Amino acid sequence: MIKSITMGFISALLMIATASAQNYVRYEQDGTASWGEMDGMTIHQLSNAPYLEGMRTGTSVSRSDVKLLAPVDPKLAFMTALNFKSHLGDREPAAYPGLFTIPVGSIIGPEDNIVRPAESKNLHYEAEMVVVVGKRAKNVPLEEAGDYIFGVTIGNDVSERDWQSSDIQWLRAKGTRGFNAVGPHLVKGLDHTNLEIEGRLNGERVQGQTSSDMLFDMNYMVHYISKYFTLEPGDIIWSGTMGSTKMMVPGDVYEVEIESVGILKNTVVQGK
Amino acid sequence: MIKSITMGFISALLMIATASAQNYVRYEQDGTASWGEMDGMTIHQLSNAPYLEGMRTGTSVSRSDVKLLAPVDPKLAFMTALNFKSHLGDREPAAYPGLFTIPVGSIIGPEDNIVRPAESKNLHYEAEMVVVVGKRAKNVPLEEAGDYIFGVTIGNDVSERDWQSSDIQWLRAKGTRGFNAVGPHLVKGLDHTNLEIEGRLNGERVQGQTSSDMLFDMNYMVHYISKYFTLEPGDIIWSGTMGSTKMMVPGDVYEVEIESVGILKNTVVQGK
Repeated sequence: MIKSITMGFISALLMIATASAQNYVRYEQDGTASWGEMDGMTIHQLSNAPYLEGMRTGTSVSRSDVKLLAPVDPKLAFMTALNFKSHLGDREPAAYPGLFTIPVGSIIGPEDNIVRPAESKNLHYEAEMVVVVGKRAKNVPLEEAGDYIFGVTIGNDVSERDWQSSDIQWLRAKGTRGFNAVGPHLVKGLDHTNLEIEGRLNGERVQGQTSSDMLFDMNYMVHYISKYFTLEPGDIIWSGTMGSTKMMVPGDVYEVEIESVGILKNTVVQGK
Repeated sequence: MIKSITMGFISALLMIATASAQNYVRYEQDGTASWGEMDGMTIHQLSNAPYLEGMRTGTSVSRSDVKLLAPVDPKLAFMTALNFKSHLGDREPAAYPGLFTIPVGSIIGPEDNIVRPAESKNLHYEAEMVVVVGKRAKNVPLEEAGDYIFGVTIGNDVSERDWQSSDIQWLRAKGTRGFNAVGPHLVKGLDHTNLEIEGRLNGERVQGQTSSDMLFDMNYMVHYISKYFTLEPGDIIWSGTMGSTKMMVPGDVYEVEIESVGILKNTVVQGK
């Protein structure tokens, strides 16, 4: 009885949280990139990134008149290896996160294609949660780390498995130009520690888990990263992926859906 | 006879090249960072980075009145693993460069200390050459790659060997805050494919080789990197180090000297 009242109370709180979630995008119109706030099918232009005190400018555009870009503009993009038990295979869980970075120039948006390089033979999807840092983070205690996360978006960390096996480090396998799709929405006000994440290859569910199954949640990631590196507003952290993954070939469509955040959908095309 | 005439001609060309080398620094005065051009002990302030058409502003300062900063301001910093045969140990030379990146926030200057983190037990030096990219590079043919290198500076890629062994990727071992010393001079007009590089621990020579011993020279690195990533003016590429390395402890001084470029000298101190 007490438990069900408590659960009802928590559910009500979550509903309020979801109802008050704010939904941001970046978009291109006439060759200019802007930040905006979604309101149904209308985008209200912002003066700056929402994590940099961007305010409504008074201008608005229709969603259908613009191209959506990745809703992030980071200087640093951290990724996390083997952060779901289901992706470990025979490997033991690590005592601390398996960190690496990718060049931010590898990021593409929700309306871009994933271009398979001519020499690539084994390109895989990886459905992930991506969080955006809201303020400068350096040596942040774990119990305060949640305050440094501005919001949540969706990522597909496209990975070249042959390069990942053959190269000394994963840079080329994970960070090649165009390998990291992000978007379409950056959502503030959700509980990022308990959201469903699903990946679909040509409509078929091939990945799925909740963010509560992460070995290290995104609050811990902010705490851990900030011991060694200084995070700035706008920097992003990828959650790592779950389960095993399969190869994508040109023509394939990969969708990543995160509960209350949206759907990221990109088509694979052959590069020259 | 012909050979000695040819050699004499080449030496004369190299002397002209050295005589015409330009020597740039970045410095801090009254809390403001500027680029400058060295002229003896005088620094002529520049309006911008020298690779971004910076011109003399007419203001000059004495070298002794300012703090020298790292003479680089990159968005991306690429490093190269195992690029000298002498550093391979039992490993076979790779067919292509072993690339990775470090966060540029880890870079410190020639007048900064190397701070050993409290939990670090096995901090090593790595003497390296660092080149600065002069213009945007994307899919650059090997024969044109040299045109994309603006100049040469000196680096100490401080590396935590225990972390390098234990972590899934090398990010923390190589890229932690304060681990990458660079400077003091950025020199334009040298032949970077044939310069002596020497490392000295407390005055004793412990590393030494010429850049001609690299498995992949810096022209090849620009060509290779630009296939997968887009280099912008100011981005930097580290050569990798040579030989085996030893541990540094607080109080140690490590110097890296590159012929015609200068000496980078930093002291190790204990962090909290």
